Amino acid sequence: MGIALGANRYGKSGVHLVVVDRDVPRHTITDFQIDIRLEGDFEAAHVTGDNRALVPTDTMRGTVFAFARTQPVGQPEDFGLRLARHFVATVPSVSAATVGLRATPWVPIADRPSAFIADASIVRTAEVRVDGDGAHVTSGITDLKIFKSADSAFSNFHIDDFTTLAETDDRMMATIMTADWRYGTGDIDWGDSAAAVRDILLATFADHDSASLQHTLYAMAEAVLTQRREIADIHLLLPNVHHLLMDLSPYGLDNPDQVFVATTEPYGVIEATVVRDGRA
Amino acid sequence: MGIALGANRYGKSGVHLVVVDRDVPRHTITDFQIDIRLEGDFEAAHVTGDNRALVPTDTMRGTVFAFARTQPVGQPEDFGLRLARHFVATVPSVSAATVGLRATPWVPIADRPSAFIADASIVRTAEVRVDGDGAHVTSGITDLKIFKSADSAFSNFHIDDFTTLAETDDRMMATIMTADWRYGTGDIDWGDSAAAVRDILLATFADHDSASLQHTLYAMAEAVLTQRREIADIHLLLPNVHHLLMDLSPYGLDNPDQVFVATTEPYGVIEATVVRDGRA
Amino acid sequence: MGIALGANRYGKSGVHLVVVDRDVPRHTITDFQIDIRLEGDFEAAHVTGDNRALVPTDTMRGTVFAFARTQPVGQPEDFGLRLARHFVATVPSVSAATVGLRATPWVPIADRPSAFIADASIVRTAEVRVDGDGAHVTSGITDLKIFKSADSAFSNFHIDDFTTLAETDDRMMATIMTADWRYGTGDIDWGDSAAAVRDILLATFADHDSASLQHTLYAMAEAVLTQRREIADIHLLLPNVHHLLMDLSPYGLDNPDQVFVATTEPYGVIEATVVRDGRA
Amino acid sequence: MGIALGANRYGKSGVHLVVVDRDVPRHTITDFQIDIRLEGDFEAAHVTGDNRALVPTDTMRGTVFAFARTQPVGQPEDFGLRLARHFVATVPSVSAATVGLRATPWVPIADRPSAFIADASIVRTAEVRVDGDGAHVTSGITDLKIFKSADSAFSNFHIDDFTTLAETDDRMMATIMTADWRYGTGDIDWGDSAAAVRDILLATFADHDSASLQHTLYAMAEAVLTQRREIADIHLLLPNVHHLLMDLSPYGLDNPDQVFVATTEPYGVIEATVVRDGRA
Repeated sequence: MGIALGANRYGKSGVHLVVVDRDVPRHTITDFQIDIRLEGDFEAAHVTGDNRALVPTDTMRGTVFAFARTQPVGQPEDFGLRLARHFVATVPSVSAATVGLRATPWVPIADRPSAFIADASIVRTAEVRVDGDGAHVTSGITDLKIFKSADSAFSNFHIDDFTTLAETDDRMMATIMTADWRYGTGDIDWGDSAAAVRDILLATFADHDSASLQHTLYAMAEAVLTQRREIADIHLLLPNVHHLLMDLSPYGLDNPDQVFVATTEPYGVIEATVVRDGRA
Repeated sequence: MGIALGANRYGKSGVHLVVVDRDVPRHTITDFQIDIRLEGDFEAAHVTGDNRALVPTDTMRGTVFAFARTQPVGQPEDFGLRLARHFVATVPSVSAATVGLRATPWVPIADRPSAFIADASIVRTAEVRVDGDGAHVTSGITDLKIFKSADSAFSNFHIDDFTTLAETDDRMMATIMTADWRYGTGDIDWGDSAAAVRDILLATFADHDSASLQHTLYAMAEAVLTQRREIADIHLLLPNVHHLLMDLSPYGLDNPDQVFVATTEPYGVIEATVVRDGRA
Repeated sequence: MGIALGANRYGKSGVHLVVVDRDVPRHTITDFQIDIRLEGDFEAAHVTGDNRALVPTDTMRGTVFAFARTQPVGQPEDFGLRLARHFVATVPSVSAATVGLRATPWVPIADRPSAFIADASIVRTAEVRVDGDGAHVTSGITDLKIFKSADSAFSNFHIDDFTTLAETDDRMMATIMTADWRYGTGDIDWGDSAAAVRDILLATFADHDSASLQHTLYAMAEAVLTQRREIADIHLLLPNVHHLLMDLSPYGLDNPDQVFVATTEPYGVIEATVVRDGRA
Repeated sequence: MGIALGANRYGKSGVHLVVVDRDVPRHTITDFQIDIRLEGDFEAAHVTGDNRALVPTDTMRGTVFAFARTQPVGQPEDFGLRLARHFVATVPSVSAATVGLRATPWVPIADRPSAFIADASIVRTAEVRVDGDGAHVTSGITDLKIFKSADSAFSNFHIDDFTTLAETDDRMMATIMTADWRYGTGDIDWGDSAAAVRDILLATFADHDSASLQHTLYAMAEAVLTQRREIADIHLLLPNVHHLLMDLSPYGLDNPDQVFVATTEPYGVIEATVVRDGRA
């Protein structure tokens, strides 16, 4: 019984591309942090040290910057597709390329044409994979810290010997949302779609009468699938940023749902994919 | 020649207080991360293990939450003053108390009364010190990522044997601003003042014809002192988030100030205090 | 076409258990950071807000601490198995439980029986999954920063229009190793096996005549599989911590492979699984 | 009343120098992360945009690497002194230079001559300042995670309306130590002194019968000053990494000081400088 190479991939992470367009009255800033991974026939490199099939990760980095010059960069999904297709099409050993992107938006300061402030509340992500089955795009938003001070309960849950949590019909709910979704067929306006998904997720979070974080997660995802027909499925990852009601009785004080301790650890994590029926 | 205790202090860090006011049509969220430090006569605790002068850091934490219940929390500066004065006034061993606060604003989602999104672009800080000389308030803003795509040069600098940087009359400028300032006498509307300072700093950053990051720092600080008479001095800390023009010539491409590499290390750091004349 | 719940799971992260055994002449410290994830029939919780199938994540946390009292904790793998089996066996809705553990070793200070220093160079990890197919254990080590100052080349790689990297027959190699592996059948001494794997990985890294990081990765994995028959397959994740030869010619100096810039971004990432033939 | 520049400084951070000496049978690795700050007459740069007094931070970075080639780097303190003296001596506008260094030790893997593992348990720091008063060296060690499972009490402390902490004559004590110290006159063997200080701090932490973290801090510092005459004063910063005894009574279990929750926030912080009498 021998030993053999199994699944493997390699690439470059942390490539930080900033493109400035100053040929317009109001400048625009494109800010992408990019990770690239290649899969393919790299067995000789691993087993015998024959590197002829390996694209140096330095070349991946150079390709990012060169591509940013030769054509407009476009949306994260567009640029990821261009890069991923390039590696699969031009490097014989490469059978699949995955490009992850994180786009930080820069919005104008007041009405100034050439000064900007980063808007951390609307960071977009994309992951593009090109392989023998074609191109696969996942779009997302991340790091959205949201809080809900009404309409959140958690009761009637499973009880066992290790249960200490009290049931409640009124609690604070907070999370740092990461969402990513895949598209069905058809031409997609990536930026328009992401903005719409964000609005739907936020509005549903705000309006939902929540029995649990799972319950709200599903409502948020269902609203996206109902209102945005271009989206095939959506995955939400919702850490539960616990806000514990502080016991003020040692100080002779009551606490009518007013003073909370926000904790970082431990934390609950809820995640699910919601799909259109008939899809995986 | 003996050995003796010198300067010393202790306290609690990472106290995360969240207060929710639901007795109003539109709920409000107050979110403060708080550090407390006490100074005083703690020699016996150090030298002989006699703890009678020590307030446990657990008590400091409890005081934060109890105080949040007994009176409205108010602005970070208000709450810091209340806490710092309490320790100095009530604990005989304590001669000085310093309270640091970091306030995260939560803004309503759309027009909803009980759902919020954190606005990371306007985190406020405060440091309040109460000692034998009275109360000293420093207010600040932090983590403001800003970028300027025009009107920034860096040339005519000191040249020596280790100079490799080229002079430029047109470069990208980016920083992650931290500002803190002290007030003169008089009643201050802390929130109003902080918002005004933020606007002045941003507008000046945008409009300044910059010869260096130092030059822009001074212009920003000078504008604050000129326009806000209540402020006595201001300190700015500006890391230089370098955006290097990518050399695309290996790929046969030019790069007319368009494609940049954003780097994290190493980074320049510029800091200065700007004062009204006659003050330290 | 309707909308339905797809893959989903939830749990608690960041549970930090420390068990101190003082009933022995030399105390022992067990320090585990634990994440738990449950899968099962949670559709009603998501879709209708019926929580009866949900174990609160607070209960998961409590179970960790209670279990640490009722039996000796043992190795990370042992404790993970106990926890994962408990949730699958006792909660009707749960079909699979995954427990991740990170074990920090505390080694005695000098020869003292009750004082310890954390040894960050030998953090062990484990991931235990119990589902309908039985129990699956992955063991690992992580965060091992290693450096190799000889016998490392990278040349004869794929060349294209975006290649700028020079070939070299002598470069610095550095990485922060994460390794995880699965076992075949039989009783395993988890601690002994992990220590042996660590030694083999380090020795092979040191001795290998490397044509690339892929080449060294494979040699390291192959050595483990050759020498430790209990291991079925092993996965290595090796970021390439680049050490760039500094160009000192602007200062009129040569640099015979002596002065390097260590960079954090961008960075290469190499990963692969190496298996015994006939296994996936 | 005008506006004027107050205290100011600038420099480069995050310069990561690695020097490899391969002209010896066993290679050696020197790994320094370096921050440089300059003070001086930079008023024109700030006020009028005249940069002639400014050394670009890029030049500071280049100087680090060039200096690493022209002479042996030596200990962190040696290299910091060389750099700081250079800037003050050669740049007319500079009146003071401060160089901070963080040295990561790389220890040989087994007995190999050219392979290394980072030893995070003995990171050394230094801060060197050269100004009109001469050269000032502070040496230190940092990030030492230590734990003590016996001989630690905390009782008889100040009680007030906000006290909830119970007194205890037996608790766990853990901290992540940062120490820095200054030297008196005379030639110092920096490496030897730092190793000795580390051993004294650890042994005293282990052996001390502690009434509080303050009490142990003082004992540790006093032991250093008593045993190492070359050291003039020492500052210790000791966060209190709380290990809370878990209340297992909800599960029908006792907990005889055995099962603990390690928490990250909030945390106590204790710091003090201990001096030889007659010094500040």
